[in-house]
Amino acid sequence: MAGKKSAKDLFAYLALYDENSEDHANFVPLSMGAPGKATLSGCNKLMTEATNSLLRDSNEERFTFQYGPCKGDPSFCEQVAGFLTEEYGTKVDSSDIMVSAGATQGLHLVATVMFNKDTPIFIEDPTYFIAVKILREDFGMNIIPVPTDMEGIDVAKLESLLEIYKPKTTGKAGSQFWSMVYTIPTYNNPKGYCMSPERCRALVKLARKYGVMLFAEDVYNMLHYDDKPQCPPRLLQYDDRSDPDYEGHVLSNCTFSKILAPGLRLGWIEAPPRIMKCLEKSATAWSGGSFNHYTSKLMAVALQEGLLQKHLTWLRKEYRERMDLACNTLEKHLPAGVKVDNPHGGFFIWLQLPPSIDSMELLKLAVQKYKVNFIFGASTSPTDGCKNCARLSISFCEKASLEKGVVNFCHALNEMLEEKQT
Amino acid sequence: MAGKKSAKDLFAYLALYDENSEDHANFVPLSMGAPGKATLSGCNKLMTEATNSLLRDSNEERFTFQYGPCKGDPSFCEQVAGFLTEEYGTKVDSSDIMVSAGATQGLHLVATVMFNKDTPIFIEDPTYFIAVKILREDFGMNIIPVPTDMEGIDVAKLESLLEIYKPKTTGKAGSQFWSMVYTIPTYNNPKGYCMSPERCRALVKLARKYGVMLFAEDVYNMLHYDDKPQCPPRLLQYDDRSDPDYEGHVLSNCTFSKILAPGLRLGWIEAPPRIMKCLEKSATAWSGGSFNHYTSKLMAVALQEGLLQKHLTWLRKEYRERMDLACNTLEKHLPAGVKVDNPHGGFFIWLQLPPSIDSMELLKLAVQKYKVNFIFGASTSPTDGCKNCARLSISFCEKASLEKGVVNFCHALNEMLEEKQT
Repeated sequence: MAGKKSAKDLFAYLALYDENSEDHANFVPLSMGAPGKATLSGCNKLMTEATNSLLRDSNEERFTFQYGPCKGDPSFCEQVAGFLTEEYGTKVDSSDIMVSAGATQGLHLVATVMFNKDTPIFIEDPTYFIAVKILREDFGMNIIPVPTDMEGIDVAKLESLLEIYKPKTTGKAGSQFWSMVYTIPTYNNPKGYCMSPERCRALVKLARKYGVMLFAEDVYNMLHYDDKPQCPPRLLQYDDRSDPDYEGHVLSNCTFSKILAPGLRLGWIEAPPRIMKCLEKSATAWSGGSFNHYTSKLMAVALQEGLLQKHLTWLRKEYRERMDLACNTLEKHLPAGVKVDNPHGGFFIWLQLPPSIDSMELLKLAVQKYKVNFIFGASTSPTDGCKNCARLSISFCEKASLEKGVVNFCHALNEMLEEKQT
Repeated sequence: MAGKKSAKDLFAYLALYDENSEDHANFVPLSMGAPGKATLSGCNKLMTEATNSLLRDSNEERFTFQYGPCKGDPSFCEQVAGFLTEEYGTKVDSSDIMVSAGATQGLHLVATVMFNKDTPIFIEDPTYFIAVKILREDFGMNIIPVPTDMEGIDVAKLESLLEIYKPKTTGKAGSQFWSMVYTIPTYNNPKGYCMSPERCRALVKLARKYGVMLFAEDVYNMLHYDDKPQCPPRLLQYDDRSDPDYEGHVLSNCTFSKILAPGLRLGWIEAPPRIMKCLEKSATAWSGGSFNHYTSKLMAVALQEGLLQKHLTWLRKEYRERMDLACNTLEKHLPAGVKVDNPHGGFFIWLQLPPSIDSMELLKLAVQKYKVNFIFGASTSPTDGCKNCARLSISFCEKASLEKGVVNFCHALNEMLEEKQT
């Protein structure tokens, strides 16, 4: 734990809070799964406009600053539903939307209000590197890793694990699910893939059969870089309401952090009525009201005025260019035999390096000699696997810096490979 | 549970979201422990100014909208520490301050990250009516009620309970506390009292002896209505760092909801290093960064420019006038034998009605015939006690409405008493 924490401190320190210092001016943090200076530009203007629009109306003051409705302000839920309807191309109802204070708060709420400590939680291996720590270290849950390939979670393996862990009885009174599967189906973190439609269908089938929730971390879904998105629909859509055995097993946990600004701490949960009811009627929601009321009112205005949509269009173009640049640069400089899948969306490029490479060692060399970092594979794996893998992010660094960082990453890799061979 | 939820829906509905409707125009929600239209006025202006100041600086954009530091932005922590130093009259260090997304989020974080489900939590009886539901129903904790009088928690009773529940061993590895005491020492909810210095000292002594955390819900502390505050220092100050056996047992959980605006979902935790470290190093904090970063940056500006302080000065004067008005009106109209303690701060007046009165029945009569509500005693008591008690709040309604509501409350009470006597 101490080691991981200090790695984290390193990233945050180097990337964010000392970027003006001389020592770190040339450092390229390919570790960062967050927008950077360039892709946050425009936020000042956008939020100024939204604030002026919202606060101009003195009749709204007593609602804007009051406790909000548990589920979120109706204007926010409606604007988000409209935005999703447009984005996903299928009708999303505002009654299925609940405000959150970002994806982490959404996970915190669901994990602690709907599940007990020591609940088995099935989680992709590898996965979002902090999620495992949240669920295991903070909330004391029993993490059950399930392997993935480049099409998604290993469904057969998941079923065999569900068989082992399924409760003898139907679970404690009042609980709807005895467990959940934590998955990142679209532009996966760290692997960049989209789960195939076959896997999505199989996953929903398993969830229904075993009575577990599918918790989909849908934070990159809008970041598709083809003119027409090539990724399958979000997992929730495979849980078809017209099915005779439909009950509602999928929760889609979303955020504005990747498509606008992490600092807003604003997101939403899309979920079927039986899950929504449980979250909305929680005492935690009741006590605080809407989880981020004021900011959600600002975002409702930004959506209504098309400000976010405009920003997102620009963001997709910018990120597409970066993704192409990073992948092309990798192809030029990577050693023979290391393949690059050019993801069609999201933030991450996942590299399987030659088996002789320990990517944690590589990170040290890369940071010290080549002034570039990345997420090493083992930190994304609850089983300490993926030792020869690396996650590079295209989101934080601008093109010139990104290109330089990728080249330097390849230099470090090539140097380490040469050392191993001599 | 269903009954309580619908009572809640009633309050929210009547008080907030339909206040313009004809049916409810004359309804007086003395239940509401939140600022109302009048005491939220000025928020539009304050937040417009803070926003303009913050977003004017284009160099700050990439920090304002980025993930924030886990503990909160340094400018926020420093401004809050300065504000508290001024308010409490003793030096508060910014290293002891962590941002929260309001008091409810502070409780959610501490309860779920530092404690297991089924942990015994010692809680004042009566207490904040939603806290019991959060801890028991949402987080599955083992609520152990401890009676209070008008000086605070019954310390002897608490010690006998700690003896019963204290673990045989020193607790699980890595945990600093095996339990916590949830207390509202200053301008208590629902009773309005301030815990006496003797009780505060005794409570800290017990916490040290038994190794439990004191979780002080310090949300009304700044709302003192004497020119010189008559209440004792906050509980945390009794945990004197110069004591030879000092370790740090008290956490002060605070919010801007009562002194500015609930909708901001912003607060802070003041805690000693060993507690702070545990919260700040949690994966939950790491994943999301600062729990409400953008809003905290706005508040740092509002504090720096003295906007909040000015608002608070006005708020104290306004609430003092309301408190006096409500207490004077009660004295005039209450039946003989019902005593009113005029609290010197906070939002609440606690009434012990004649033993023949069931305040839940009284609520029905008051709502239906007299168009006024309040919090009935049993809903504040984890043991379903306080059946003849009522909590009236002065925070939501403006003076004319408040006076009318209090008179009507007394009419309802007198009517019910007469019925009982005939």
